[in-house]
Amino acid sequence: METEGSMSRPTITLTTDFGQADGYVGAMKGVMLRICPQAVLVDVTHAIPPQAVQQAAYVLSTAIPYFPPGAVHLAVVDPGVGSERRPIVVQTERAVYVAPDNGLLTMVLAREPVQMAVHLTEPSYRLSPVSDTFHGRDIFAPAAAHLASGIAPRKMGEEIAASELISLPLLMPVPKDDDTWLGQVLHLDSFGNIITSLACSLGRSGWTLDGVATAELGPRTWIEIGKHRVEGVHRTFAQVEPGAWIAYVGSSGYLEVGIRDGNAAAQLGAKVGYSVRIGW
Amino acid sequence: METEGSMSRPTITLTTDFGQADGYVGAMKGVMLRICPQAVLVDVTHAIPPQAVQQAAYVLSTAIPYFPPGAVHLAVVDPGVGSERRPIVVQTERAVYVAPDNGLLTMVLAREPVQMAVHLTEPSYRLSPVSDTFHGRDIFAPAAAHLASGIAPRKMGEEIAASELISLPLLMPVPKDDDTWLGQVLHLDSFGNIITSLACSLGRSGWTLDGVATAELGPRTWIEIGKHRVEGVHRTFAQVEPGAWIAYVGSSGYLEVGIRDGNAAAQLGAKVGYSVRIGW
Amino acid sequence: METEGSMSRPTITLTTDFGQADGYVGAMKGVMLRICPQAVLVDVTHAIPPQAVQQAAYVLSTAIPYFPPGAVHLAVVDPGVGSERRPIVVQTERAVYVAPDNGLLTMVLAREPVQMAVHLTEPSYRLSPVSDTFHGRDIFAPAAAHLASGIAPRKMGEEIAASELISLPLLMPVPKDDDTWLGQVLHLDSFGNIITSLACSLGRSGWTLDGVATAELGPRTWIEIGKHRVEGVHRTFAQVEPGAWIAYVGSSGYLEVGIRDGNAAAQLGAKVGYSVRIGW
Repeated sequence: METEGSMSRPTITLTTDFGQADGYVGAMKGVMLRICPQAVLVDVTHAIPPQAVQQAAYVLSTAIPYFPPGAVHLAVVDPGVGSERRPIVVQTERAVYVAPDNGLLTMVLAREPVQMAVHLTEPSYRLSPVSDTFHGRDIFAPAAAHLASGIAPRKMGEEIAASELISLPLLMPVPKDDDTWLGQVLHLDSFGNIITSLACSLGRSGWTLDGVATAELGPRTWIEIGKHRVEGVHRTFAQVEPGAWIAYVGSSGYLEVGIRDGNAAAQLGAKVGYSVRIGW
Repeated sequence: METEGSMSRPTITLTTDFGQADGYVGAMKGVMLRICPQAVLVDVTHAIPPQAVQQAAYVLSTAIPYFPPGAVHLAVVDPGVGSERRPIVVQTERAVYVAPDNGLLTMVLAREPVQMAVHLTEPSYRLSPVSDTFHGRDIFAPAAAHLASGIAPRKMGEEIAASELISLPLLMPVPKDDDTWLGQVLHLDSFGNIITSLACSLGRSGWTLDGVATAELGPRTWIEIGKHRVEGVHRTFAQVEPGAWIAYVGSSGYLEVGIRDGNAAAQLGAKVGYSVRIGW
Repeated sequence: METEGSMSRPTITLTTDFGQADGYVGAMKGVMLRICPQAVLVDVTHAIPPQAVQQAAYVLSTAIPYFPPGAVHLAVVDPGVGSERRPIVVQTERAVYVAPDNGLLTMVLAREPVQMAVHLTEPSYRLSPVSDTFHGRDIFAPAAAHLASGIAPRKMGEEIAASELISLPLLMPVPKDDDTWLGQVLHLDSFGNIITSLACSLGRSGWTLDGVATAELGPRTWIEIGKHRVEGVHRTFAQVEPGAWIAYVGSSGYLEVGIRDGNAAAQLGAKVGYSVRIGW
């Protein structure tokens, strides 16, 4: 009678820097399946570089929008484990997030207003005892599974104002005197594509740079990473020859630089945080 | 009332070169769970080397035959994304495949006759808008999920003749004047075993080389990769000493070369495509 | 009517050294879903270093205790594949284990008395034919899936005495003349934390070293790995500065050495099996 769907088989996604060579992710999944046996567990990634909160915030924001409404998204990149940083649950109209309060949710919450944020303090929704080094297993995983089972966030601790949540600075383009703008490298993907912080929007007449309304992206645009300059913004890799450099707006709406059938990040030795300049 | 089985919980497998460090695979899984919440998603691998269509074709062919009949197999290794290459669905008696039409399915379709092939053109079975660089998320994942939900392939686009599908050349042994045959390195596995293109069959009197009916594999057989020669074909690693080289027919029916408790590929510096010679 | 739970959706976990770049794990999952379509398959890890039975025994022991009672745990690190080593199933009060009989279960069985052990010999619970190199697919995966479907272990082969199972030596601290104890490096995790064989227990007055009842861990304790000495045992990373060395009892109850926001294993060049000394 019951339709199998988001209620009967709630989805929990996982995004961590735990890697997959240890028992950490397995332990978290075991904890969740004990509390919520009907949950569908989906890995986003466990290969965030250790403690790279900003990169995790980006990767999370590229995958989360595609999941069913009502999913629970668990994200643990937690350099402050064992400190006073707060474990939190954040409810939005679309989803529920469980994470340390360290800015990890900045990019998803920039698009989804917070309906409620709760400091996870209620001991009955944790494992006991709680270890000093693995809150992913002892606090975050149990919270995610209880939420997936239907427990209301407000039962799990003390409500906190959305304005009190820790945010990372949003990386807007910085204008320079010479009509160029500065951004930075946000992420390097598995193909070696260099994802920049330069967010773009698709309008009637093509892509423009966010925050710079007049700045259309096209053949006259150039991008510089270090001393390397790529001329023109293309639509797709197939428009350039194998081995050629290309700038394009990636599938998450950020300007990217790549090499067709090659690894741009390795070729440039680019790293997250490197400066990027765009001009016309 | 309904038995839980392949109909109520359809299986979708994933084989890509996307790696697991980004949000790409997560986004695809999110898309699929929204369209088909009851689907069971199973990773074959996301660690195909970037754009290595031939290796993907091999890896796919080693795992797919073990899945339940009726499963949907999604494979995306897609150097031609954004070009005119066709996204396709291929129905066989055993399974349904979703992939770019670039030869990725060559090795599975060599064993399973095509019942129907369809060019995926129908917009209502894609995300909208379709990005220029991530058809895995916007075209292939939605198609796989709709198929898993029971949509018939013919509704998803225009039927195409099986003979029009792009195929990779099948790698048959090439005879040489001196009664030896040439093959090549097809794949290097995680253990460093070197999988060759030399396919074998188990007959009454033991293994023979496909296409060379008289060629029994045994103590008098030798294999050469570059200047390295391995004498004899054994049955199993346990027949040689730790550290010793061994040739054997692997679990997918291809001749392989390995080192017991060691890494043959690293030792030889072998690469995919290297020439392999077999003789008696 | 039926509650979705551990009976209707049995959990099977997987721990192997197969990596995730090949079709091996996919083939095993396909085999299991054909036999037991309702199974929930959960990866613990596939990144055990090749043939590292001891490390696998450790990683398994850190994840398994968190899974639902009644789960089936499949572990395949199998340097002896093709030899006379026995494939076994072991039933305890909490769970069912499927593995080669090579010591892989030593650390889990140290905590859970064996109720029954069976040598997996019954052909009807294997694939046919059984390959000589991939018992994971042909023997272990089918056994795990049949167990998850409710087949009793005793039907799957010949019962063997628990005392006949192969065990790895348990690594107890070795006392030295100068009131120090020796242990060894058990595992290096993805963060570069060095997990030692020195097991600890939490008592009323804090952590003590197992087997050395009087040995409380605190500010006067030191740990040496090679020539590197770390002073004091702390509770959590947040107690030291970023970049500082720290010794602490890890989330699995073993003494660990790490660097806050750094990679201790890389810094020391530590390897599994290295000697570790503890003193006061």
